[in-house]
Amino acid sequence: MSTQYFKGSLFHTPSHGELEFIKDALLTVDEKGLIQTILEPSDAAYVEHLTNARASNQFVELAEGQYFLPGFIDLHVHAPQWPQAGVALDAPLATWLEKGTFPLEAKYADVNFAKEVYNDLVAHLLSLGTTTVLYFATIHQEASLALAEICGKQGQRGLVGKVVMDLESMNPDFYRDNSVAESLEATESFILAVKELGKDVKQGVYPVVTPRFVPSCSAEALAGLGALAQKYDVHVQSHCSESQWAHDHVIERFGKRDTEVLNDFGLLHDKSVMAHCNFLDESDGEIYMETGTAVAHCPISNGYFANSVFPVKKFKEQGLEMGLGTDISGGYSPSLYENIRQAVISSRMLEDGVDVNVGPENRGVQNSRISVVEAFSLATQGGGEALSLPIGVLKPGYACDLQVIDTNVKNHRISSFGVFEKPEEILQKILYLATKENIRQVWVQGNLVHDKNEGA
Amino acid sequence: MSTQYFKGSLFHTPSHGELEFIKDALLTVDEKGLIQTILEPSDAAYVEHLTNARASNQFVELAEGQYFLPGFIDLHVHAPQWPQAGVALDAPLATWLEKGTFPLEAKYADVNFAKEVYNDLVAHLLSLGTTTVLYFATIHQEASLALAEICGKQGQRGLVGKVVMDLESMNPDFYRDNSVAESLEATESFILAVKELGKDVKQGVYPVVTPRFVPSCSAEALAGLGALAQKYDVHVQSHCSESQWAHDHVIERFGKRDTEVLNDFGLLHDKSVMAHCNFLDESDGEIYMETGTAVAHCPISNGYFANSVFPVKKFKEQGLEMGLGTDISGGYSPSLYENIRQAVISSRMLEDGVDVNVGPENRGVQNSRISVVEAFSLATQGGGEALSLPIGVLKPGYACDLQVIDTNVKNHRISSFGVFEKPEEILQKILYLATKENIRQVWVQGNLVHDKNEGA
Ligand SMILES: [Zn+2]
Ligand SMILES: [Zn+2]
Repeated sequence: MSTQYFKGSLFHTPSHGELEFIKDALLTVDEKGLIQTILEPSDAAYVEHLTNARASNQFVELAEGQYFLPGFIDLHVHAPQWPQAGVALDAPLATWLEKGTFPLEAKYADVNFAKEVYNDLVAHLLSLGTTTVLYFATIHQEASLALAEICGKQGQRGLVGKVVMDLESMNPDFYRDNSVAESLEATESFILAVKELGKDVKQGVYPVVTPRFVPSCSAEALAGLGALAQKYDVHVQSHCSESQWAHDHVIERFGKRDTEVLNDFGLLHDKSVMAHCNFLDESDGEIYMETGTAVAHCPISNGYFANSVFPVKKFKEQGLEMGLGTDISGGYSPSLYENIRQAVISSRMLEDGVDVNVGPENRGVQNSRISVVEAFSLATQGGGEALSLPIGVLKPGYACDLQVIDTNVKNHRISSFGVFEKPEEILQKILYLATKENIRQVWVQGNLVHDKNEGA
Repeated sequence: MSTQYFKGSLFHTPSHGELEFIKDALLTVDEKGLIQTILEPSDAAYVEHLTNARASNQFVELAEGQYFLPGFIDLHVHAPQWPQAGVALDAPLATWLEKGTFPLEAKYADVNFAKEVYNDLVAHLLSLGTTTVLYFATIHQEASLALAEICGKQGQRGLVGKVVMDLESMNPDFYRDNSVAESLEATESFILAVKELGKDVKQGVYPVVTPRFVPSCSAEALAGLGALAQKYDVHVQSHCSESQWAHDHVIERFGKRDTEVLNDFGLLHDKSVMAHCNFLDESDGEIYMETGTAVAHCPISNGYFANSVFPVKKFKEQGLEMGLGTDISGGYSPSLYENIRQAVISSRMLEDGVDVNVGPENRGVQNSRISVVEAFSLATQGGGEALSLPIGVLKPGYACDLQVIDTNVKNHRISSFGVFEKPEEILQKILYLATKENIRQVWVQGNLVHDKNEGA
């Protein structure tokens, strides 16, 4: 495969909250699917490259009203919970888990059921512009491996964890690991299998060490998983200090904060991503900084299960790495667009407060709101930083992960009727109003993985 | 036009939060577009009616995986702000209004621009399942009348207000009424013109007395509008106690609360709908109860401009009439589905609070959360009650306003893969996951106004 060329106006954020718009950018992409150059029309080499592009059969040129955005990065998805999306969110968490989630996850002992759901989910996420996903699978070896294979085949960059949850007192009999030893052995062989699989996958698939969360794991399991993460230098994911209950439970059990427990078991390092983190304090933030651990902020899910709003602004100012997660199905929506919107709204609710019976000076937390561009950063640049992968920003050496947004799709037109036409205004309208139908094409590592032009 | 027949499974809420599911219901609809009967398969007359239906050329029969919902009722839309949806929501309200909204609204002096935007908006809202809308237009007579005409033609039940905003100190020179007298005369002739127009519109169009909000109107204008509302027994809309600023400003100016001012000017009665109402207290609620005034709760917009969460649960328990509004473009989304979701999330944030530095017992307001079925009620039954119109519930004597939801649309499939199949679970998934593409057909007063089968 020779050089690929992409020409069109693009939006991205080279760093958190810093918006860059390039009109009629010309990208060249090498055979590995990495961006080689990004030229603007004013660049000296632009005309020559454009001539080469036009002579190539690997040339994608956007029409008026179409824009490139970086592919979105979803840092927290429970793939097996896709059938449960939107169901019973009015129930208390314990009911939701025991009557819904755990019986559902137990079904993935059947690998055919797993393949049906996972094929549907991966395709759905790609069609929503999500090019990289950090997945929780289940405790099942075969089904978890099937998820990694499906990501590989469909062209999504998947980071997949076989879940460990071994504590008898905290997990149902019908759905938990049989023993610490078995869960660690299975994790190790899962790591090896996915590493092997990844060798043949252009966009990469990666194994992830995945204790469900501290409350569901024995100390032995947590220690063993920390050792495996170090031995193989792989990604780690879990939940940290999500809810009042989870946060308090860990302190009661270990006499330390959730972050400290995870760190002491060797689970926090540069490739670690912890979901939610709502109850982190600044000392926890320090540990995140020191270890390079990132936060997966899940704004929709937090509205249901986190008893609070995660203070994005505060922890970005402290310097933490951070991206967005849909948290299917604690969050009902598979769309990072919808989570970008909720991230903004939730941050404003944190700033302004919620209860009018409290005076305005005490109602909320000053300096908490984030802009929609900052939320867009989280879904792109922030996600790439969190995963320590060269993705989420459009620059040389980074993966060519793109979504093509068409603002002129019939019945899904995004228009200001000529009134608001500054680039930032156009991006704002896209982020707030785009539907799945506006996402015309999706590219991962230079491969076309979703194409509405083909009727998909 | 003879009797129409509709057969399919339906969801609606006969009263607030009370879900009714009828499998394979058979509706008959008279020539006025009103529901005559709703039969269940167990009813004695079902077979006979079904035989008549099959012999009729006015028979709509849903396929497996398709469901009827009542058409949604949007109680708060600024039609002229549609081009601004999603733009500059990070800016402070004053900037947003002065740089964005007011210059935009001023453009509707050009009726051709108005027609272009209004035609697009009305079609868009219909395609989102919104069959009835309470609209703010602008101060312009011709353009406001055009909006009512467009609703009439496109088949939407439109309630349209020509906006009054006359106070020199509070409105920009380039966009305000010239005088009290002129604004009242124009309102009166607008009322008469829309009433005349409505005579030929099957689904109805209605004029609405519309002071923008108390801060932008003189006492004379408010009094005059109250008198007009009484004289013609028409609907009234405005904003009430939306933000900390607006709420405090009215108290400072009049020495009374916003609700009291509106009531004293004769603006609160059974056909009145006030947007937002976040800073209402129980005494205000009493006035709402006594007068039959309803609240248009706008959860997405409130995240940006209301400094708080409107306590739906509390005021429903007090007995207030209440529905949902998108508040385009204070709210970016034209979709009541998205507002249903935000209403649930916001209510949970009110209950749980937002700031983890506050202890769990003081963080939020107990007993504030609403279920997604309650939010669905607001968008349907509650909206009909608010407008004092026989809409939003599927029962004899009510308008046949329906949306057909298809859970099997390609690339927009809503599925639990066989796991969650109770009717309430199906509805939950529809409310949380449906996109515009799942809304297959929309009927208003028995007229087909949107049809994806025709490629719309
Ligand atoms: Zn999770
Ligand atoms: Zn408004």
